[in-house]
Amino acid sequence: MRILYQLPLSPTSRKVRLVLGEKRIPFELRAERVWERNEEFLALNPAGTVPVLVEENGLVLPDSYAICEYLDEAYPEVQLLGRTLGERAEVRRLVAWFDGKFAREVTDNLLYEKQMKRLLGRGNPDAGAIRAGYANLKPHLDYLGWLAETRIWLAGNTLSLADLAAAAHLSALDYIGDIDWSLNDAARDWYARIKSRPAFRPLLADRVSGTNPPPHYADLDF
Amino acid sequence: MRILYQLPLSPTSRKVRLVLGEKRIPFELRAERVWERNEEFLALNPAGTVPVLVEENGLVLPDSYAICEYLDEAYPEVQLLGRTLGERAEVRRLVAWFDGKFAREVTDNLLYEKQMKRLLGRGNPDAGAIRAGYANLKPHLDYLGWLAETRIWLAGNTLSLADLAAAAHLSALDYIGDIDWSLNDAARDWYARIKSRPAFRPLLADRVSGTNPPPHYADLDF
Repeated sequence: MRILYQLPLSPTSRKVRLVLGEKRIPFELRAERVWERNEEFLALNPAGTVPVLVEENGLVLPDSYAICEYLDEAYPEVQLLGRTLGERAEVRRLVAWFDGKFAREVTDNLLYEKQMKRLLGRGNPDAGAIRAGYANLKPHLDYLGWLAETRIWLAGNTLSLADLAAAAHLSALDYIGDIDWSLNDAARDWYARIKSRPAFRPLLADRVSGTNPPPHYADLDF
Repeated sequence: MRILYQLPLSPTSRKVRLVLGEKRIPFELRAERVWERNEEFLALNPAGTVPVLVEENGLVLPDSYAICEYLDEAYPEVQLLGRTLGERAEVRRLVAWFDGKFAREVTDNLLYEKQMKRLLGRGNPDAGAIRAGYANLKPHLDYLGWLAETRIWLAGNTLSLADLAAAAHLSALDYIGDIDWSLNDAARDWYARIKSRPAFRPLLADRVSGTNPPPHYADLDF
């Protein structure tokens, strides 16, 4: 069976789970405690990061960018990167926006400071970083809401990897109670739509030991 | 004419210039002072970052990931992402390694602290970050050297985007005098090979006002 090495709150792991789910590709999850720097895992991915996908034929795919591009090439029945060159550029621009800019300005300041830093043994959360994360969330939700209001899905007329990348970050932050959905109604409506997709259910059922999500986390009418 | 908005020491801008050069696609350079947050430029790319490629047909492509994937799809005569699914995964893994891990652990600690921070008005260089950047350079050059010794090019038998991503970071750091090439002979030999390619020449001719490169920067027998 295909194996996805991952961590339940890792946004890029969640993105790959959503891609596999949308494409209806079966897989098994394996939680990898990256902070233990397990040698067998480092042999699969010298970067020591999740996600890593190991295909049934033995092909090892580290890094969510490499995995998602691979999945769209190897399993093209459900396409998530767009059809025309222009559509594909817009999907990828937004994937880079969420996995790059949003990750640095919001996710790293909240999820990394509050959850990962302790696990990685890198000291206490930095209060300034957490304040910056909350301050940056509002303009990002406004941009996401603007995209959701002017288009059917974030990158255009069809659901794409851009929606899955954004939903992956927001769902991980929502789990730790850090998304104030009253900040932007259009963003909230978009999230309610994507949250109700079958591919999303396993993420909503996930529980991380020591951290319980807020009551609205798995609620489709939040 | 096709226009590339860029900054001369931006590694991802350099990567796109190398891709365009290897594919022999003509383009004009336009330096974009991203720290001025020019409104016309923000309309092209709301993330406010370089590189941004504007095609002759008006298609606007922000973000180096979106640009490089686009260029390989739109101009496939010279392929830089590999042919088989496995080759393509390895190229993309290494692109993510250099633009992600290497950027965070080395480039951001050196180039960002020494050059960009002042331009962006974000204060003085952090001496601890600069020390960390130098300390991280050695294991990264060793990994690059190991790849270069066990393969013809970094990702396999042919020159790929992985080589161009790595060379883009190293050439920008070499410009500010931060690469000690005596650290790893195989990495140095690989860099000498890539530096002698015609696509590299414009990068070696670039000069940034206020910062002169060390004498070996443009020397092919450094």
